[in-house]
Amino acid sequence: MNHPGAPDPETLSLLKAEFGPDLLTSTGELAARGRDDSGLFLPPAAVLLARDETQISRLLVLANERRFAVIPRGAGTGLAGACLAETGGVVLDMSAMNRIITVDEKSVTATVEPGVLNIELRRAAAAKGLFYPPDPASLDTSTLGGNAATNAGGPACVKYGTTRDYVLGLSCVLPTGEALRVGTATRKGVVGYDLTRLIVGSEGTLGVITSLTLKLLPLPEGQACVAAVFADVGAAMRAISAVMTRGHLPSAIEFLDARCLRLVGDLLPAHVRAGLPGAPGEHGEALVLIECDGGQGETRRAIADIESLCRECGALGILPAPDEAARQAVWDVRRSVSTRIHESCVVYIPEDIAVPVGRIADMVAALPPVEARHGIDIYAFGHAGDGNIHLNLTAPSEARRPAVEAAAEECVRLALGFGGTMSGEHGVGLAKRRMLPLEIAPVSLRLQRGIKKLFDPNDILNPGKIFPEEAC
Amino acid sequence: MNHPGAPDPETLSLLKAEFGPDLLTSTGELAARGRDDSGLFLPPAAVLLARDETQISRLLVLANERRFAVIPRGAGTGLAGACLAETGGVVLDMSAMNRIITVDEKSVTATVEPGVLNIELRRAAAAKGLFYPPDPASLDTSTLGGNAATNAGGPACVKYGTTRDYVLGLSCVLPTGEALRVGTATRKGVVGYDLTRLIVGSEGTLGVITSLTLKLLPLPEGQACVAAVFADVGAAMRAISAVMTRGHLPSAIEFLDARCLRLVGDLLPAHVRAGLPGAPGEHGEALVLIECDGGQGETRRAIADIESLCRECGALGILPAPDEAARQAVWDVRRSVSTRIHESCVVYIPEDIAVPVGRIADMVAALPPVEARHGIDIYAFGHAGDGNIHLNLTAPSEARRPAVEAAAEECVRLALGFGGTMSGEHGVGLAKRRMLPLEIAPVSLRLQRGIKKLFDPNDILNPGKIFPEEAC
Repeated sequence: MNHPGAPDPETLSLLKAEFGPDLLTSTGELAARGRDDSGLFLPPAAVLLARDETQISRLLVLANERRFAVIPRGAGTGLAGACLAETGGVVLDMSAMNRIITVDEKSVTATVEPGVLNIELRRAAAAKGLFYPPDPASLDTSTLGGNAATNAGGPACVKYGTTRDYVLGLSCVLPTGEALRVGTATRKGVVGYDLTRLIVGSEGTLGVITSLTLKLLPLPEGQACVAAVFADVGAAMRAISAVMTRGHLPSAIEFLDARCLRLVGDLLPAHVRAGLPGAPGEHGEALVLIECDGGQGETRRAIADIESLCRECGALGILPAPDEAARQAVWDVRRSVSTRIHESCVVYIPEDIAVPVGRIADMVAALPPVEARHGIDIYAFGHAGDGNIHLNLTAPSEARRPAVEAAAEECVRLALGFGGTMSGEHGVGLAKRRMLPLEIAPVSLRLQRGIKKLFDPNDILNPGKIFPEEAC
Repeated sequence: MNHPGAPDPETLSLLKAEFGPDLLTSTGELAARGRDDSGLFLPPAAVLLARDETQISRLLVLANERRFAVIPRGAGTGLAGACLAETGGVVLDMSAMNRIITVDEKSVTATVEPGVLNIELRRAAAAKGLFYPPDPASLDTSTLGGNAATNAGGPACVKYGTTRDYVLGLSCVLPTGEALRVGTATRKGVVGYDLTRLIVGSEGTLGVITSLTLKLLPLPEGQACVAAVFADVGAAMRAISAVMTRGHLPSAIEFLDARCLRLVGDLLPAHVRAGLPGAPGEHGEALVLIECDGGQGETRRAIADIESLCRECGALGILPAPDEAARQAVWDVRRSVSTRIHESCVVYIPEDIAVPVGRIADMVAALPPVEARHGIDIYAFGHAGDGNIHLNLTAPSEARRPAVEAAAEECVRLALGFGGTMSGEHGVGLAKRRMLPLEIAPVSLRLQRGIKKLFDPNDILNPGKIFPEEAC
């Protein structure tokens, strides 16, 4: 199937005349939009710095008339290549539409343009005693438009859900160039089909988001956390189930497997290391980090109770976090994993499968045979509270890349076998589209392609993303 | 536009032969499925008691071949006529598919058939320390399939969201008769378009739900509440904003306007009545009921703090609820409103607009002119935390029904003018479809109709619901 690609030279001249200095074509500007965090490099033919809805609409009308591709882009922090111009085309850079329109403390909502950074809204909300919960790892640098387009999630999902749970309504420009407002400005709304959540998570293939009305929550007073090391993943998971069935709803439940623990074990306090039956990781340990948020007294009591539950479930060592510095130290152990994996290997493929929480132990137990079969290393860590386990498949040399790729697909199949999904956070984009039929049945694919065709009859908006080529 | 209707006599014979005793055609059985809580009466030509997916699929294949309508039905507690056979047709009664398949305390999820009552899942979850939050007023009698089809919400929405936030995945039979599984069994999932939330809230027009995988939460230890009477709606809303911006996330924030207060004022404790500047309601008072859930100590402290905030915001009287009996007494004041409205008037139309919380006071202030213009009474009460205010438009005689209907449409227009929606909970069904174009723009309607056509090319599944006739 031939997707639309770059504008022809005549069309490019027309775009320059139409958009003047907002249309960028220098090699540097194109190269800067040729990358995201997937490792791919696919520079566009041109970049339009989006200013307003009218201009976006004009570009899309031209794209339909002259059949070139338009690829919306936020901050380019995605891991799946969804914002890259695979077929050339014009990248629509949304980063300059970055106004926080309102943070409304009476309605407990915010209205923002898509280029606002996640962290900027968090700060603006906090200044009024309010809270925007979705917390992708990229929250310091990623945009809310990108977060919505990819339905971004993070550690807070276990308590707060993901981006789709916070988008009450949105404005967008359809691939046809028509402006569309969907959803509501209210927490409830049941009028017609839910186009809002159809567009959220559609990876920029159904519309260009131009504003978002977001649900906010009261700002929790503070956080408290504890981490515990267990003799095996099964015990760690029993502790999580014990916590969740005794009235506690943590705002994060993070997990490190034995290999990750070995990598960052030196960061554990001496008293914890001393309590373990060997060097960290040697005995198949798992680390669980549990955080609660809310009033100070309340979170402290919750964490004390959670610590007891962890001990009851056989925790070998506890890392308490009696103050903010200790809390940051515990999170540093968790956060150091990614950095150290990056430092320690040449080939690195991040999968982000999710499985039902009750199957995490099975999933982790299934990894060593995959490692052995392919001669690679797999580091498993992530969000145990929602079953979203990042599998970092690594090898020490480029020569082993095909083995890593084969193992990655095997891991996806394993996750699906455990009732899971191939992606909890990263999305499909280019990186996973060939695997889509492993998870999505033909009848579902037919409906999804039908929806794409309905919204974008000429296939000009972010063509080729998500769906495998028809021949597949 | 002609929608498919009842099966012709030959087809009806064929259905009887095909489905045997599961096909009901007695007048009593048909009449029982001819009603919901909308007040409409539209009995079907036949009823099929759904047993399994294969049988549902068979019915839908026949419906396509022979062009008759199929109308899925749960417990029939809807208020919009969405489960009624307007054009005749076969009602697919899902109430016998009522197994709780699992309540999984390890994965903190449940899998259920659509005929399970909301209360049954709540009880089964509670037995394992877990919690299913969506709480429509009908939770004792409505089914989870119906809740999902209408995206049911209730008082808990302010903290917990609505049904769509709990449906992780679902199985359904498409109008074509094909079985489809969408979504995940995990809390996160970003693979392809969100067909799950497209089907949730589609009022049985896109597919027949045959099972639901639902997110659960830890069961809160308990609840505590307080109610406060204010001199005017503005002060009440300032109190709500104060609560939400000081770290409190109540599990319900309910509201009664002056007219409601007058109706149930005799249920207020004497000391509260004594503190008011006149008889309850005489001075434009508003009552706000705020409930928190969680650990016992924590909720008690939160309620104490909320009581202080209410006093700071000028509360004239406080109804404390130091124990469970007092808490039930406070809720009885709130719950008595509906009953007393029903008892006190002949004509009664329930609108359930939602407006941004910050506009509730404006909305309520706009009602007296509507009452005066049409010579009717409007009782406003409901879920202040999410802006979903039930407007009960009433008149003492049938002769005034046209005036009540005219006022209802005026209220909808007012709500839309305040940035709201015509329905926070009840949905569109038959009752509101003629008003749909007031809220949904033509381009959105075109896409929504396109989605219906994509899923249901022959318009056989719940035809005519939601969308106004094309001529409109």
